[in-house]
Amino acid sequence: MNKKTKIGLFGFGVVGQGLYNILSQTDHFNAEVLKICVKNRHKSRPLPSERFTYDFKEILDDPEINLVVEVISDAREAYHIVTHALRHGKNVVTANKKMVAQNLKELIALQEEFGVSLTYEASSCGSIPIIRTLEEYFDNEPLHSIAGIFNGSSNFILSKIYNENLPYEAALKQAQVLGFAEADPELDVSGMDALNKLCIITAHGFGLAIPPHHIFNSGINNLHALDMAYAKAKGSKIKLLAMAHKVNSEQLIALVIPVMVHPDEDLYTVENEFNAVLVDAMFAGKQLFKGKGAGGFPTGAAILSDVSANFYEYRYTYKKRNNLKHTGNRLKYNPDFDIQVYIRYPQHMNLTAFLPVKDIIETGSDHHQQYVVGKVNLRNLLEQRNTLKQEKVFMMATHTSL
Amino acid sequence: MNKKTKIGLFGFGVVGQGLYNILSQTDHFNAEVLKICVKNRHKSRPLPSERFTYDFKEILDDPEINLVVEVISDAREAYHIVTHALRHGKNVVTANKKMVAQNLKELIALQEEFGVSLTYEASSCGSIPIIRTLEEYFDNEPLHSIAGIFNGSSNFILSKIYNENLPYEAALKQAQVLGFAEADPELDVSGMDALNKLCIITAHGFGLAIPPHHIFNSGINNLHALDMAYAKAKGSKIKLLAMAHKVNSEQLIALVIPVMVHPDEDLYTVENEFNAVLVDAMFAGKQLFKGKGAGGFPTGAAILSDVSANFYEYRYTYKKRNNLKHTGNRLKYNPDFDIQVYIRYPQHMNLTAFLPVKDIIETGSDHHQQYVVGKVNLRNLLEQRNTLKQEKVFMMATHTSL
Repeated sequence: MNKKTKIGLFGFGVVGQGLYNILSQTDHFNAEVLKICVKNRHKSRPLPSERFTYDFKEILDDPEINLVVEVISDAREAYHIVTHALRHGKNVVTANKKMVAQNLKELIALQEEFGVSLTYEASSCGSIPIIRTLEEYFDNEPLHSIAGIFNGSSNFILSKIYNENLPYEAALKQAQVLGFAEADPELDVSGMDALNKLCIITAHGFGLAIPPHHIFNSGINNLHALDMAYAKAKGSKIKLLAMAHKVNSEQLIALVIPVMVHPDEDLYTVENEFNAVLVDAMFAGKQLFKGKGAGGFPTGAAILSDVSANFYEYRYTYKKRNNLKHTGNRLKYNPDFDIQVYIRYPQHMNLTAFLPVKDIIETGSDHHQQYVVGKVNLRNLLEQRNTLKQEKVFMMATHTSL
Repeated sequence: MNKKTKIGLFGFGVVGQGLYNILSQTDHFNAEVLKICVKNRHKSRPLPSERFTYDFKEILDDPEINLVVEVISDAREAYHIVTHALRHGKNVVTANKKMVAQNLKELIALQEEFGVSLTYEASSCGSIPIIRTLEEYFDNEPLHSIAGIFNGSSNFILSKIYNENLPYEAALKQAQVLGFAEADPELDVSGMDALNKLCIITAHGFGLAIPPHHIFNSGINNLHALDMAYAKAKGSKIKLLAMAHKVNSEQLIALVIPVMVHPDEDLYTVENEFNAVLVDAMFAGKQLFKGKGAGGFPTGAAILSDVSANFYEYRYTYKKRNNLKHTGNRLKYNPDFDIQVYIRYPQHMNLTAFLPVKDIIETGSDHHQQYVVGKVNLRNLLEQRNTLKQEKVFMMATHTSL
């Protein structure tokens, strides 16, 4: 155990610098950053230029470097770096949720083939140790559901709108200034970022690696004052939730959608850049994990923890996935399920012509907009998501429990 | 990894039966209970008598048994069983917080000497994976504080009194009927149970193994309607909290005390048998972990997780403790610290004659009782705890933050 972790770091943005600062501020940490690979030669950096390289091979071919830490934002480049590093026999720590979610099956296979480890605690819910907890603590315990606030930036925006009556654009701007938003904020507010995390968490919690585009996601980018007023009138806040729910032993559903959350629920008090994960397990019952979901230090802390675990030769074993593969367990992802939603759409649109709404309990309209509250099928939502997006439809589930 | 975990189980009460039921209800779990050691030959049991033994050597001497799981309530007997098992080269999983807290230094030394593992996730906060998280996730990150609701039974009682206006005795009775209370409820309501857990958690979170009797604890057993009315008038609930707080790089304080918790705090909404742990870490920031803290299944789930980890040869490495020992870190437990408290005591008692109270901001009295709100020194409280107990004094901190 007296080997030292020598890190090749890719990326030196908010998270990369957060990690670098943590490593230099924490005592007794047996790791150092040997080289930092960045893209832009002309950007001014807070460290001497000899610490940087612009050629990713300089890190992959350096035999002294025994751990690659990847914290760049571009998912395609990250995929390139991570898969090359794994094939070069190097362990990797990444924070790139999009890259991990989109390539999970391949990344699991590469780890097995090359006997290396890829960990990505920082990819999901910032500083909350949710992947490790699902891997190590709930590895043998069947779960009923996992649900939560997985995107700190959109939660920050929703808090500002609800608590301070800020307009959407002003709230988004604040999130960007504070460093909570992704480089492309569309990822946050569309629910895509939460969706990527949901895919990763679902793989560890239920053993199913579902590609993100198979799961319906709806964000907060079309939120109007009208919708917020509706939620407030019902005594609830709007929170953007990611949810995976075992309907029965053979059916798992998953989605990302704004939800009307009521004051007696744990998620009601989760504000600003905080994330929270609710795990409902067969024996442990309901667990809540809450922590900072965005920002350089919380994400850096999660990466630090992966770096530390790497020192102790920790790796994911994907126990739930292996159990599913090697036993007669029939659990499958299947979006054929009705959920009750509030849908607000433009006056000119004939919503029900392409999206069947059942059990309608409420409708309303003003000059430009109308809304309906009723049940829709998740599969229909998936099929019609482009139309819903084009028409700037806003949708929210009326309850946390499905 | 195809060896099977063969368990010798000590104790078959609520928790032992919970574990047994989980092991027989969960698929794909590579563990079975070979023998169960119990004390009372004449009690009727839900399993055939050949599964039971009354001689603890039958388990310790059985070479087939590779894991001892100890879930009896008597701490002295548990100590006897666990230390013998460790000396016999057997790994042990225990749920006995009192035994672990009182003998932690010796138990750590035994693990090192005999190359065996002792894990005790179930000893602290039921189903919340707090020890594992401190060991593995926060192993290299300095913490500012750990605080929380560590005793499900007393939290249940406080919830019933606050929310349903139940008298103390009736609430305690309900906790006992529901199986949330320890065999001896005095352990719960006096804060002793929470204190034992605090000692264990402090060892993993800060590296200091403090014997329980060095830490001040005050419980809810002397709670009057008067005290509850005072807290309600200030807009707060009373929660029994355990807290360890780093005052500076050289001083750690720790205590168990009822606290006035305000509506904007996370712990305000933690009700009934739920436990919660707040961790404030240097980089990750504030984290909340909330889950069921009492009952056979939640505790069984935590034991199950230890059993599963044992299969993967997991053991605690006490990293923070080793860091403290091998570096120049000067952090020490030192109760010389003032906290602001509400103290309610009998009319006849001359409180300040033996307990100095500074910065008094409020006093009051009725025919039999009087109260004072001011600052007291933790060291004085420790010295006077027998007198406080004899006089049935009730005390609560006015704020969560110290």
